[in-house]
Amino acid sequence: MKKDLNITPLNTLSLVDKVEMRITQYIKDNNLSVGDTIPKELQFAEALGVSRTVIREALSRLRTIGIIDSKKHKGMVLSHPDFIQNFEKVIDTNLLEDETLKDIFELRLILEMGMVDVLFARKTKEDLKELEEIVDRMETNNSESTIFKLENEVAFHGKLYEMSGNKTLQRFQNLLLPVFQYVHEHKLPDAEPYKYSKKFTTHRELLNYLKEDDIKAFKKGLSNHLEPHLDRILEKSKS
Amino acid sequence: MKKDLNITPLNTLSLVDKVEMRITQYIKDNNLSVGDTIPKELQFAEALGVSRTVIREALSRLRTIGIIDSKKHKGMVLSHPDFIQNFEKVIDTNLLEDETLKDIFELRLILEMGMVDVLFARKTKEDLKELEEIVDRMETNNSESTIFKLENEVAFHGKLYEMSGNKTLQRFQNLLLPVFQYVHEHKLPDAEPYKYSKKFTTHRELLNYLKEDDIKAFKKGLSNHLEPHLDRILEKSKS
Repeated sequence: MKKDLNITPLNTLSLVDKVEMRITQYIKDNNLSVGDTIPKELQFAEALGVSRTVIREALSRLRTIGIIDSKKHKGMVLSHPDFIQNFEKVIDTNLLEDETLKDIFELRLILEMGMVDVLFARKTKEDLKELEEIVDRMETNNSESTIFKLENEVAFHGKLYEMSGNKTLQRFQNLLLPVFQYVHEHKLPDAEPYKYSKKFTTHRELLNYLKEDDIKAFKKGLSNHLEPHLDRILEKSKS
Repeated sequence: MKKDLNITPLNTLSLVDKVEMRITQYIKDNNLSVGDTIPKELQFAEALGVSRTVIREALSRLRTIGIIDSKKHKGMVLSHPDFIQNFEKVIDTNLLEDETLKDIFELRLILEMGMVDVLFARKTKEDLKELEEIVDRMETNNSESTIFKLENEVAFHGKLYEMSGNKTLQRFQNLLLPVFQYVHEHKLPDAEPYKYSKKFTTHRELLNYLKEDDIKAFKKGLSNHLEPHLDRILEKSKS
């Protein structure tokens, strides 16, 4: 069964694909780093024996993903790619597959449970004050609309990510937020309410564990707090 | 201090940037989904009042990040973007900033600690058998070269990700692997050996907790197993 081989057939690689790969390989092989200039279109075209149009298309792709940048008077220069930016564009259009969306939903829960050690190592008094204000707002506005509640929910969990001090993680989570919401509303079976009649760890309790520097209680509490979401995924994966 | 405002100045948006944003907005506003065709170059050019060259460049970007695909006889069709692919290209060139590299190093630890619940819910007997084979290899080849040890190390942790059943997570982790290695070797201070004279949870012990279905012991053990890495980051972030 040739079809089962998880290998990319040669003929799906276009000339532009190949040129793109050659250029990134060139960057690596020559240990070029940020700020270095790379050869001009014409030079690449001659060295690779292809038309300038093909080279232009390949370079344009590398520009799109942020690896190269065109500077006036300097030509093409290597630059720091933005790790998150292309994700943003991809997620934004609602074109991802259902299976990927569910994976991402799960990924967010995984990140939140996994970041507790970093969170405890880096939290500051100012962070806790801000978090407390969010929890206060949540409790006084308990009777407000669902949208308002959701905003506070997002503020609380967003603050936890911010407190982790990991900017890539924080941007990644911001990015996952709309996916989370979307999957939450459309793609997963509802949580079964009868299963959750037992008491759940509240935002106030999580805050208190942070203030008391009780990492063990916080880990347990967070796991409990996120359990309904996790159960929905795991139910789904069994069926 | 205008410079402190975290806002993108208008003049950094090129005409192509603006056209790209208009087209993605068009896709969203019209609720287009995978398989739908989008208007031709010329139609976009006329509707937006810009040249076909500008439209072509913007469409080429969207093709690069996987949102559109050109099909014979059908024109341009919306497609499922590959969530991970552009990451791969970006990481591959070693152009990321040090700060981002360190964030990613940390992110991998966070993912591994966070995925334990999913791992326990989905692990199968076949998984455990395979993991045991890896651990056996590790123990018999204890005297082998560092590279060999590293291979087994990667095999063990890679298997854990595979067992999570989350394909996006798994691909993401594969992708982070070279970064992890790079940061491990070049960007962080060495772990201080004297601090780690106490006994660490071994791969064999982690395997046994999985076999005994003891999630609590596994979580504690994994945390202990990853502690030297985590300590290095947190040391660094204090200084």
